[in-house]
Parts: sequence; C-alpha cells; structure tokens
Amino acid sequence: MVALAGGVGAARFLDGLTRVLAPERIFIIGNTADDAEIHGLHISPDLDTVTYTLAGLADPRRGWGIRGDSFRCLEALGRLGTDTWFQLGDRDLAIHLFRTERLRQGARLIDITAEITAALGVRSKIVPMSDDRIRTRICTTTGELEFQAYFVKRRARDRVISVRFEGASEATAARGVIEAIANADAIILCPSNPFISIGPILAVRGIREALQIKRDRVVAISPIVGGRALKGPAAHMMKSMRLRPAAVEVARLYSDFVGIFVLDEIDQKQALLVAQLGIRPVVANTVMRGMREKKSLARVVVRQLEIDS
Amino acid sequence: MVALAGGVGAARFLDGLTRVLAPERIFIIGNTADDAEIHGLHISPDLDTVTYTLAGLADPRRGWGIRGDSFRCLEALGRLGTDTWFQLGDRDLAIHLFRTERLRQGARLIDITAEITAALGVRSKIVPMSDDRIRTRICTTTGELEFQAYFVKRRARDRVISVRFEGASEATAARGVIEAIANADAIILCPSNPFISIGPILAVRGIREALQIKRDRVVAISPIVGGRALKGPAAHMMKSMRLRPAAVEVARLYSDFVGIFVLDEIDQKQALLVAQLGIRPVVANTVMRGMREKKSLARVVVRQLEIDS
Repeated sequence: MVALAGGVGAARFLDGLTRVLAPERIFIIGNTADDAEIHGLHISPDLDTVTYTLAGLADPRRGWGIRGDSFRCLEALGRLGTDTWFQLGDRDLAIHLFRTERLRQGARLIDITAEITAALGVRSKIVPMSDDRIRTRICTTTGELEFQAYFVKRRARDRVISVRFEGASEATAARGVIEAIANADAIILCPSNPFISIGPILAVRGIREALQIKRDRVVAISPIVGGRALKGPAAHMMKSMRLRPAAVEVARLYSDFVGIFVLDEIDQKQALLVAQLGIRPVVANTVMRGMREKKSLARVVVRQLEIDS
Repeated sequence: MVALAGGVGAARFLDGLTRVLAPERIFIIGNTADDAEIHGLHISPDLDTVTYTLAGLADPRRGWGIRGDSFRCLEALGRLGTDTWFQLGDRDLAIHLFRTERLRQGARLIDITAEITAALGVRSKIVPMSDDRIRTRICTTTGELEFQAYFVKRRARDRVISVRFEGASEATAARGVIEAIANADAIILCPSNPFISIGPILAVRGIREALQIKRDRVVAISPIVGGRALKGPAAHMMKSMRLRPAAVEVARLYSDFVGIFVLDEIDQKQALLVAQLGIRPVVANTVMRGMREKKSLARVVVRQLEIDS
C-alpha cells in the first residue's frame, strides 16, 4: 500500500490508516517541495509532520512541530535580530540539525529520513519523493514567492496565479518510489492540497505515469469539503486560479490517474459529476476530528480497495 | 587597553576589569583555536565564554554556556543517536546557528562576533585573534587529539606531549589586532592556560612580535597558583611536558614579551625568580572567588600600569 502525502491532512489520515492496517505495509511518499533552508538548516516540513504524527509526537492543536516543545533557541535567535517567522521548537531543531549535518556529510535524504523514523519508532516507511532539490515557487499577483514565505510568513493570503516546482523536471524519484507504485496493491492520495502537496509529487518524472498504469487501484480523498479546505489554502488557491473550490474539481485534476474518489457526505451531490469523469465516487465522512473518524475513513478506503486489513 | 583572553579564567578577570575601567576602553583578543564544528555548527567556546560573562549571561557554576539554559535540543539529538558529549544549551545554540549561518553567507568571524556582542549589550570590543581557521591539536601519549575531544570528551586526562596549532603559520591576525597592540597603553595577558589559550594567540603571525615591542607595557597574570591551575589542565599539562607547574615557569614562557608578571601571594617566594628573568614581579591575591576579588585584582593591574581608571 502506497500513500502520497503532504502535511497535516495526510498525517491525520495516515494516523488512522496505520491503526487499521499494519504500519509496516504502508509506504509513504512525502512531498519535499516545501523544504526550506532556515537559519542554515534543511527543514522538511511535510516529512516531519507525517513522521511526528506517526511517532505519536505531533502537536495536534498546531498541526506542526512536537507536542510540548519549547522555543528557547528561537527566542534567542530573535534577540540576535534574525527573522523568526518560521517557528522552530527546541526538540524539533534536533531533527533539522541532524538532517543538515547528515546531508553535508553526503548522505541522501531518503536514508536520513529512514534514520530519523527508525530512531523515533515509526514503523511505516516514509520516503521523500526525490533526493533532488525541488522547490515550490508561488506566482502571486504581487510577484513570485518562495513557498514558506508565501505559506508561513505571509500566511497564504496572496492571490495565487500559478505554482511551479523548480528543479522538478531534472529530478528523479527517490530509490524505490516508482517500484513501490508499480508493485502496490493500491495507492492512496491523502487529503492534501492538490497544488502544493500532491502536485509536486506528481511533477517528479515517472510518478504520474506510474500512477496512470495503476489507475483503477488509485484512490484519492478529497481535501475540499463543502467548498472549503479543512486545512490550508487549497480552496483559496482554487478560487484565485479560477477553479471552483469543489471536490469534483479536485477529481478532475486527478482524472487521468485516479480510479476511485472519496468525497464527503456534504458533497454527495457531486458524486454523479465525479462518475461522469470516469472515476468511481465513494461518499463518506472525511472530516477527521478524532481517532474514531480517522479510523473510520481509513476503513472506508481499505474496504473500497478490497484489501485485507 | 588590550587583553589576550582564553576562556573562564580570562572571563572572570575581565568581569572585574570592565567594572574598574570603562568597558569601551578594553579591546579583547580572543582565542579561536579551540573552535570546533559540532553538529555542523561553528562553535567558538572562548569567544562565547567571554561574551556571555560580559553580557551578564554566563553560568558562574559551570563556567560555560548561558545561565538557566535548557538542553532539550541536545537531549533530542541524543535520542537520534548522535554524540552529545559537547553540551549545547538551547539558547546557546542560537549563537552557534547565527554564527554558522553568517559564516556560510561569507561574513567574517570578527564581524559576526561584533554583531553578537552588540546584540547582547557587551560594551567592550571582543575580537577573534584571526578570521582564519586555526585548530589546536593535542599530541598525547595515546595519539593526537582534536582539542575538544581532548578537553571535553576525554576530560583533559591524557598525558600531553606537545601542542600544535594547525593553520597558525598561514593565518593572519584579524583586522585591527596588531594595530590595537601597537597603540595600546597596556596589554594584559589574562590568567589563561599558556599552552592552549594564550599559546594559539601568540602563534598568529605578528602578534608575539607586536608584544615584544611593547614589552614593558605587557602584564601577565599567572594562571598557576600554589603549583595548581585554578581552572583547567594547565598544571597537569606543564607536568606532562616536563615543566615545573609553577608561576615562575609561566613567566619564563612569556619572558621575551612580558615586562610585568602578577603572581599570587602564596607564590611570593617566586617573585625573586621572576625578577631574575628581567620581569617586574607583582604579588597580589589572584584567586577570584567573587566580584570583590575580581575588582581588586583588576585594580592591582591597573595601578601597576599607571592607567587612569
């Protein structure tokens, strides 16, 4: 079982899935296009959000970082006059220091990620989409922004015209990614932003093509519920990119490689429209407030894929 | 007024001196040969010890780091399986992150140090002996060790045969260092280890020669009291290098460029031996337990140099 994952939405879903299926059966391909260099450290926000969640360390309220973390180093950096809009907790920092040092030693991100997840007791495999440098650039009405500047510093308030993934065309998928998709019983697109979380993964050479071959085994969970994104700027981005913020529009973006589409009960009326795209619609409660909903949604997906749990 | 400074002993003395003279009058040349790369960060332990002390942030009990600092990042690094024998506090880390990032941006250590001291409200000038990379290597009976491996990891227990300063012969003094010595009313060698704190500063091209010219205005304070070092391995090193651990032996090492030598009351009998080296001996209480002793020692030095305070 392969999952394509962004940040918080994906982490929540995977938190349920790893309790419905044995975590060892799940191969997670994480977005690294929102990676950034901050204070000279290599930060991989999406990989970390998934890792911390599956390690039971995530802060459920904030959606990022480690539960109960302190911010003493960041406060001290602020007193030195550096920008501190990107919040880095003291424990969280250890991960970034470790990753940065290992990268400098010549290690690959895939191996470093394996070292981190092993140390934190994560039983699923978490793999970056690529070891190569890929960076999301957001073209807005006020100019092009680095992803974290758009997302964190400016709080995703700019009107987005388009998104590009610098380095994606020269990048190759990380070791085992294409093979995992090719050999998977099923592939799940987690409920993540289609432009900035799933989009970059699809932009890596070979991944979209590998998914197309498995189309009837690919299921996507809508990140749009009732015309709104449950988390993040997906709906806002769709509007500014002149797309209707609706589940069916996400299905349309995925229609060449997704065979099953899970949309929320509130969007039941769009099921027919999804079916007209040649995609099998599945209606379920996709709003995951607690563990009960997370597991319930995971079971719906597993049942649709007729996988033994 | 110029001071040559190592770590804790120097910081203590300077803590008194900056209360006896206006701090702005003091130009401190710091040892950088015990700098190290730890977790990919550039650490400058001696510069930081002096900086933290003069900023009122030092931990008086430990002698390094910031008072009341926490170690959450270090603990988390430990859980990732990395070596954590070099203690780095969370607030302390901010300084190292800042320095490392600025170095990577191409800034010089002298300018970065100025930025840090300004941000922390230090009014004396603290300048690294050199912007170039110089590293103390300790040749011991069990082989050559990097300085921090010898000093922190192995707790300075190895028998030292000799000390060398890698890179020193190609290094140049930092901007203003030679000029500051040449123009100084007086130069003070703080009570620091002659081999690993003062030694590396003297090894930078031009510094020893500049001091020789000013010999009668150069005063050294003995780091050896009653045959023992008040802090650190100086006495132990002298013994293993077949020198008698005595104040007069330190005076002998400095005799080509030191005109005045302050030794402790307990070592009064060595005053004559110091005088026989052509150095004016000054007997005083050099053991600085509290602020009263720190200021008192500073006043002795200032009085000997006939400087208006």
